[in-house]
Amino acid sequence: MAESVLRFGMVGSGYMAKMHSLALRNVEAYSWPDLPKIEMARMADISPEAAETGSRRWGWREACTDYREVTRADDVNVVVIITPNSSHAEIAIDAFKHGKHVLCEKPLADSVEAAERMKDAADKSRKVGLVNFVYRAWPGVELARQLIAEGEIGEILHVDGHFFQDYAADPGLPFSWRFDKKAAGAGAFGDIGSHITDIACALAGPIARLSAISKRIHEFRPGPGPAASAVTVEDLTSVLVEFTCGAVGALHASWAATGRKCDLGFFVTGTKGSLRFDWERSNELHFFSSSDPQRTGGFRRIVLGGVHPGAEPFWYAQGQGLGYAEGFVITLRRLIEAVLKGDTAVRPSFHEALHISHVVDAALRSADQRVWINVPPTKAFA
Amino acid sequence: MAESVLRFGMVGSGYMAKMHSLALRNVEAYSWPDLPKIEMARMADISPEAAETGSRRWGWREACTDYREVTRADDVNVVVIITPNSSHAEIAIDAFKHGKHVLCEKPLADSVEAAERMKDAADKSRKVGLVNFVYRAWPGVELARQLIAEGEIGEILHVDGHFFQDYAADPGLPFSWRFDKKAAGAGAFGDIGSHITDIACALAGPIARLSAISKRIHEFRPGPGPAASAVTVEDLTSVLVEFTCGAVGALHASWAATGRKCDLGFFVTGTKGSLRFDWERSNELHFFSSSDPQRTGGFRRIVLGGVHPGAEPFWYAQGQGLGYAEGFVITLRRLIEAVLKGDTAVRPSFHEALHISHVVDAALRSADQRVWINVPPTKAFA
Amino acid sequence: MAESVLRFGMVGSGYMAKMHSLALRNVEAYSWPDLPKIEMARMADISPEAAETGSRRWGWREACTDYREVTRADDVNVVVIITPNSSHAEIAIDAFKHGKHVLCEKPLADSVEAAERMKDAADKSRKVGLVNFVYRAWPGVELARQLIAEGEIGEILHVDGHFFQDYAADPGLPFSWRFDKKAAGAGAFGDIGSHITDIACALAGPIARLSAISKRIHEFRPGPGPAASAVTVEDLTSVLVEFTCGAVGALHASWAATGRKCDLGFFVTGTKGSLRFDWERSNELHFFSSSDPQRTGGFRRIVLGGVHPGAEPFWYAQGQGLGYAEGFVITLRRLIEAVLKGDTAVRPSFHEALHISHVVDAALRSADQRVWINVPPTKAFA
Amino acid sequence: MAESVLRFGMVGSGYMAKMHSLALRNVEAYSWPDLPKIEMARMADISPEAAETGSRRWGWREACTDYREVTRADDVNVVVIITPNSSHAEIAIDAFKHGKHVLCEKPLADSVEAAERMKDAADKSRKVGLVNFVYRAWPGVELARQLIAEGEIGEILHVDGHFFQDYAADPGLPFSWRFDKKAAGAGAFGDIGSHITDIACALAGPIARLSAISKRIHEFRPGPGPAASAVTVEDLTSVLVEFTCGAVGALHASWAATGRKCDLGFFVTGTKGSLRFDWERSNELHFFSSSDPQRTGGFRRIVLGGVHPGAEPFWYAQGQGLGYAEGFVITLRRLIEAVLKGDTAVRPSFHEALHISHVVDAALRSADQRVWINVPPTKAFA
Repeated sequence: MAESVLRFGMVGSGYMAKMHSLALRNVEAYSWPDLPKIEMARMADISPEAAETGSRRWGWREACTDYREVTRADDVNVVVIITPNSSHAEIAIDAFKHGKHVLCEKPLADSVEAAERMKDAADKSRKVGLVNFVYRAWPGVELARQLIAEGEIGEILHVDGHFFQDYAADPGLPFSWRFDKKAAGAGAFGDIGSHITDIACALAGPIARLSAISKRIHEFRPGPGPAASAVTVEDLTSVLVEFTCGAVGALHASWAATGRKCDLGFFVTGTKGSLRFDWERSNELHFFSSSDPQRTGGFRRIVLGGVHPGAEPFWYAQGQGLGYAEGFVITLRRLIEAVLKGDTAVRPSFHEALHISHVVDAALRSADQRVWINVPPTKAFA
Repeated sequence: MAESVLRFGMVGSGYMAKMHSLALRNVEAYSWPDLPKIEMARMADISPEAAETGSRRWGWREACTDYREVTRADDVNVVVIITPNSSHAEIAIDAFKHGKHVLCEKPLADSVEAAERMKDAADKSRKVGLVNFVYRAWPGVELARQLIAEGEIGEILHVDGHFFQDYAADPGLPFSWRFDKKAAGAGAFGDIGSHITDIACALAGPIARLSAISKRIHEFRPGPGPAASAVTVEDLTSVLVEFTCGAVGALHASWAATGRKCDLGFFVTGTKGSLRFDWERSNELHFFSSSDPQRTGGFRRIVLGGVHPGAEPFWYAQGQGLGYAEGFVITLRRLIEAVLKGDTAVRPSFHEALHISHVVDAALRSADQRVWINVPPTKAFA
Repeated sequence: MAESVLRFGMVGSGYMAKMHSLALRNVEAYSWPDLPKIEMARMADISPEAAETGSRRWGWREACTDYREVTRADDVNVVVIITPNSSHAEIAIDAFKHGKHVLCEKPLADSVEAAERMKDAADKSRKVGLVNFVYRAWPGVELARQLIAEGEIGEILHVDGHFFQDYAADPGLPFSWRFDKKAAGAGAFGDIGSHITDIACALAGPIARLSAISKRIHEFRPGPGPAASAVTVEDLTSVLVEFTCGAVGALHASWAATGRKCDLGFFVTGTKGSLRFDWERSNELHFFSSSDPQRTGGFRRIVLGGVHPGAEPFWYAQGQGLGYAEGFVITLRRLIEAVLKGDTAVRPSFHEALHISHVVDAALRSADQRVWINVPPTKAFA
Repeated sequence: MAESVLRFGMVGSGYMAKMHSLALRNVEAYSWPDLPKIEMARMADISPEAAETGSRRWGWREACTDYREVTRADDVNVVVIITPNSSHAEIAIDAFKHGKHVLCEKPLADSVEAAERMKDAADKSRKVGLVNFVYRAWPGVELARQLIAEGEIGEILHVDGHFFQDYAADPGLPFSWRFDKKAAGAGAFGDIGSHITDIACALAGPIARLSAISKRIHEFRPGPGPAASAVTVEDLTSVLVEFTCGAVGALHASWAATGRKCDLGFFVTGTKGSLRFDWERSNELHFFSSSDPQRTGGFRRIVLGGVHPGAEPFWYAQGQGLGYAEGFVITLRRLIEAVLKGDTAVRPSFHEALHISHVVDAALRSADQRVWINVPPTKAFA
C-alpha cells in the first residue's frame, strides 16, 4: 500500500458537505485489501461560522476560513472541492500545485477557459484528479458501460438521454444563484444536463457536434427580499448530438419538468442490443440482446446487486438496493484506489469533465445562434 | 341520417387491405344511432390476379383493374386508398373530383407538392377527407389530446416522441421499395416517423422549425436476385423541434432499433402536468397532475376502457384491452360519422397530413444541410 | 379437408353474442390452408324479440325461439352456447346427442353434477367440445404453457394467480342474477375465479386439494325496483391450493377489488425459471431463466407478436398488439381446426372444465366448512 | 432532552453488525433537534477473535466475550442484539433487567414461549424495546400505513403479500444453521416470511386465524465437510390468512424462488382504494383512490422523497433514492426518539413481534396438520 493513512480536507461546507462527509465516514466499512485509514482533517469555508458548524456537524477535525489552509496543509493528501463553480479553478489549481490529489464537484468550472486550466494543472501535477459526476460510477451505469465495452450491444447507433426534475417548476421558487448566469455559468443544462451528458459520453464516447434549443420558462423569480429578480439562465434545453463514433441522438435537461422527480435516464441502441436505465428505479438495468432467440428474447430487467461493478463491497443481496448516498462511497473508493495505485487516469477525469464543459458551452451557444457547433476533439472517453 | 347505405371502394390490395376490410366488416357491430349499412362494393388493383384474390379474400363484391372504376363508380361513396405513396395523389384527386369521400393511407404523398394538390382537391370537393394516421384516434392518444385541450397539463413545454421498430435491424433483410428513395420518398422518418410527428402535432400543434440528423445504417441490402442493392434512404432520424406554441423537444424514428418491437411513445411535459404513452402497453395512459397533493401525487396509470374516447362502442371492461386492428375500426367510425354529418373538418385531415409531409421534407433537408429549417405556417392542428 | 362449409348456430343473444359473432365474421380473414367457409346459420333466444334483434345485429341468417331449432338443425354443424349457466347442460347434451360440435361458454355448468353429465355426453358423442375459457388460448398464456412443457422453468414449485376486477366494488351496483346463488351457482370465484383456476391448471396441472376463505362485501344491493335484494354469493375468495404435481400456491378472485380493472395475472416459479403474466399488459410475457449468466440475467419482457402461438395468422408486428376480441378468434380457430381434424382432445376440454367446476365447488365448500377439501382426481390437464 | 449521550453496546458481530454499526456511525448526521451524541461503547462475541475484529472494523471502543459485559455495563444505555435467534431471549431479558433499552434483531426468538418471556421482560422494565423488522419503517411502507390509518383506502378487504428470494434456489448452496430446525426454529417463513407478516399486520392489524402449506424443495444440502446434511425446515410456505379486522388474503415466503432477488411486496385492497409496494422498486408506492374521477383515475406511482415519513432527515430530492442501509438509520432514529421521549410504545414492539412469532408458529403447525389454526388474540398492532 502506498499510504497507510489518507488525510482529507474539504473546501466548502454546503449541501454536498453532507454527502462527501458521510462517504468519508463510511468508506472504511466497505472492506478491500490494504485499506488506508481515512482522516477527515480540515474543512474550510470563508464564513467562520459555516466552517465551524460544518466541521463539527460532519466530523472534521479542524475548521479554517482560508482554502489555502487546506490546499497547502501538510496534513492533507486529498482536497475535496464543493464550493460554487466559479471558485473551483483557483482552489483546484492551488491544490494540484501543492501536491494534493483533488476530488472536485461537477461541473468542473464556470467556463471552458477555467476548465482548461484545471485540466492542465491536473496533468502537470501527476496527482489524481477526479470530478464527481456521481451517477457515473453507479453500478447500473458502470455495468452498461462494461457491456458496451465488451461488445454486447455491437456498434452504438442512437443515444437518448435526459435529466428531468421538477423542483423549479413552481414559479414561486425563490431566486438563487442557480438562476443567475454570472454565478452559475449555465442553467438546467449545466446543472443537471451535465450529468446526463457525462453518462452519454461515458457510454458512447465524446460528442463531435451538436444543435440545441433552450427555453426560459419563468422570466422572474421572487426575491431576494420583496422584489423579484430576472432569471438569466435557461430552464430547459434539448440538444441534438452526434458522437465521434457516429451515433446520433438527443439529450434533454430541465429542472422544471412537472412530475419528474429525479428522472435521469438513458436508452442506448446498438446494432446487436440495447440498454435502458432510469434513475428513479436505480437498482435495475434493462438489457436486450439480439443473440436471444426471437421467441423468448426481450429486455432483461437485471436487478443489481453485489455481483455488479462497484456494488461488491456493500455485499447486500441483489435487489436489496443501494441509495443515492452510496454513490458517493463508490466514487470515493474509486478515488482512494487510484491514489493507492497512483492511477492518474481514474474516471471521471479532468479531461473528461473538460469535454463536458465544452459540450455545455457549445449547447448554449448553439441554442443562441441556431446553428450546429463542433465540439473540440478530445482524447477523453477513449 | 344523411345516407342509409354507405358504399365503399378500395384502391390497392396489399397489407393494409386486411386491416381496412376487417374494419369495414366489423364496424356495423359497434352500434351508434343511425348507423348506415356498410357495403364493400369494389376493389381495384392494377394486377388482375391481386384484384381478384384480394376482393374474394376480404369480402369485396367486385374486382377491377382500373382505379377509375372505383373513383368514378356510381355505387361508391367512399374511396379507401392503400396503394404505394406515389400514386395517392392521382387517385385521391380523381375521387374528390367525382364527388367521393376519401380515406387515404399515410403518408399523404411522396412529395410536398403532391400533398399540396391533394389538400386543395379535398378543400374544393367539400367532401370528407381523412388520412389514416391510425394511432391518432387510439383512445390513449385521444384522451391525452382531450386532457391537454382541457388545460389539465397547462402550457406545453416539452415533447419527446419516438417510433422505434427493429424489423430492419438485420442487414440481411432483403431490399424492397421502402429502401429506395425514388419509390418511398423517405426512409424510416417518412414511414414511421410520420406517425409520431402526427401525434406530436395533434397534442402540441404545428411545428415551426426543426434541426435534424440522419443515419443510413446498412448501405446495401440483398436482392433482388443474387445481387445487392444500394439503400438510398435513412434508417434512423432524430429531429430537434420547436412548435408554434413555443414548446421544444425531439422526435426520433428508426426501423433498425434493436429490441424495440413497436415502440411508439411520447412524453409531454406541461406547466401543470405531464402525459406519457407507450404503444407496447397501448391500453394505458400515464398522467401526472400537479394539482394532486405532493405527498400522494404521482403519475396515474389510467387503464383504458369504455369510458375513454373512441372505445365506448367496444363496451369491453376497462383493462380488457383493445388491439391494433380496433384502431382501424375507431378511425373508420370517425370517418362514417363525418360523412353522416357532412363534417369536412374531421381529423386527421388532409391539411394536417400536408403539414406532416412538410415536416418530413424539412427534416430530411435539414439533416442534409445541417441547418435549422422553418416549416411553412399552417392553420391545421388548431 | 373434412368439411368445406362449417355452419354455426348460437343459443343465447346476450353479452357474449357480440364477441363470438365478431369472431365468426372475422375468422375467415385469418388464413390457413383449407379454411372452410363459415356460415352463421341461426340464433335462438327464448325471447322472440331478442332472437330477432340479435340475429339481425350480429349477422345470423335466421332467428328462432327454441334452442332445439339450433341443436337439432340439419344446417348446423357447431352449436355455440352463451345462455345462463343453469341451461348449459340441457342444451349442450341435446347438441351432442344430435351430432353437433359444441363451443360452450364458461363455466361449464351451475353444478358439478350437471358438468359431469355434460362431460359424459361430450365423450359419448365423439364430437368436438370446447369450453370458452377465452384467456387460455391467449398467446402469452399459451407461450407460458409451452415453455413449461419444454422444461424451461424446470419443476413447478409455486403458482400465484388472481383475477381482480372492480366493477362490483360500488355497493350501488344494482342486484342481478350474478349476485343470486340459485341463478349463478357461485359468486366471484365461479365467475372470474374460474378463469384464473383454468389457467393455473393449464400451466401446473390439476389441483389435488385446497383450503379457501370467502367474503361477502355487500350484503344487499339495490333493485329490482325500489327495493333491495340480499346478495347470496361471495364477492371475494382466496384459495390455498396444492397441485397434483406437488406445487403449492394461492388463487384469488374478486369483482369488488378497488382500482383493479381487469387484473388477471399469474406468477409461476419453477426450479429453473419463472414466468409472469398480467392481462392489463396482455401483449407481453415475463420469463426468467436461471441459465442466463447471473451478471446479465433478469426477467425478460417478451413482447408478443406473430412469432408466438395463436398470434401467427394476425401477422401484425411484435408489439403492435392484439385485443380481447381477438382472443375469441384464436379460440374459434382452435375449434375449427379440431373439427377439421376430428380432434376431440382440443382444449379447453369438457374434461378440463369439469375439473374447474370441481375446484370452484370445493373452494366454496372449504370456505364454508373451514377445512381442506380434496378435489376428485382427473386425467384432464395431462 | 432526556440524555445528552446515548451509549450503545452490541451483542454479536455477524452480518448485521455492519448494518447497525453503519447506522450508528451515521445517525448523527441526520439532524433533528436535541440529538444526543452517540457512542459505540462495546461489542461482545463469544469468540474473542470475532469480538476483536468486529469491534475494530465497525468502530466499537471495546471488545468483550461475555454478553453480560454489555447488558450490565454502566456505560451502555442501549443493547443491540444480533446473535442467533436461540440466544435472543437470554440476552434481551438480562438487558431489560439491568435497565437497558433493547434493539433486537428479528425474529424475536426461536420459540413462542421465549418470545412471550421477552415481551414480559420488556413490559416490566418500562424501557424501550424495538424489534428490527427493518422494512417496516421504510418510507413507502410507513406511508402506506399512514394512508390506511387516515382512511384513504376505506376498510381493508384483501391483503396479498410475499417475500421471495432465490439465494437458496441452488441445491448446491451449502448446509448452514438456517436449514436446521433446531438452530433456526423455522425455515423460509420464519426468516423472511416474518418480514412480510410483520408488514401485513402493521397495515391490516393482527391475524386471527390461518391455514398454511409448506414445501421442502431440497432434502439435503452439501456439507459440512464432504458429507451432505438433511434439511429440516421448509423452503417455501404459503399461508391463507384472516385478519381480526375481517380482511382475508395470503402470505408467501421462499428463499428458493428462481429469479426473485429481493421480491418483498404487498397489495392491499380496500373499499375505497388500494396500495401496492415492491421492494425491488423500493423508492415508490402505488396508490389508487376511488375518489379520483373514473376517466383520469389510476394507480398513482408516488416517488418517495423527503416529504415522506422517515425520509425527511435524509433531505435528498424525491426520486434520488434511499437504499437498504438507510432503513437501519430510519429505524435507529425511531429508537433514539423513543428513548429520548421515554416512549415504550415505539414500533415494531416486542408485543408486535410476539404476535409475528405466534403467526409463524401457527403457520408451521397448520401446514403440518392441514387444519386452520387460531392465532392467540393480541392488543398489538392496534
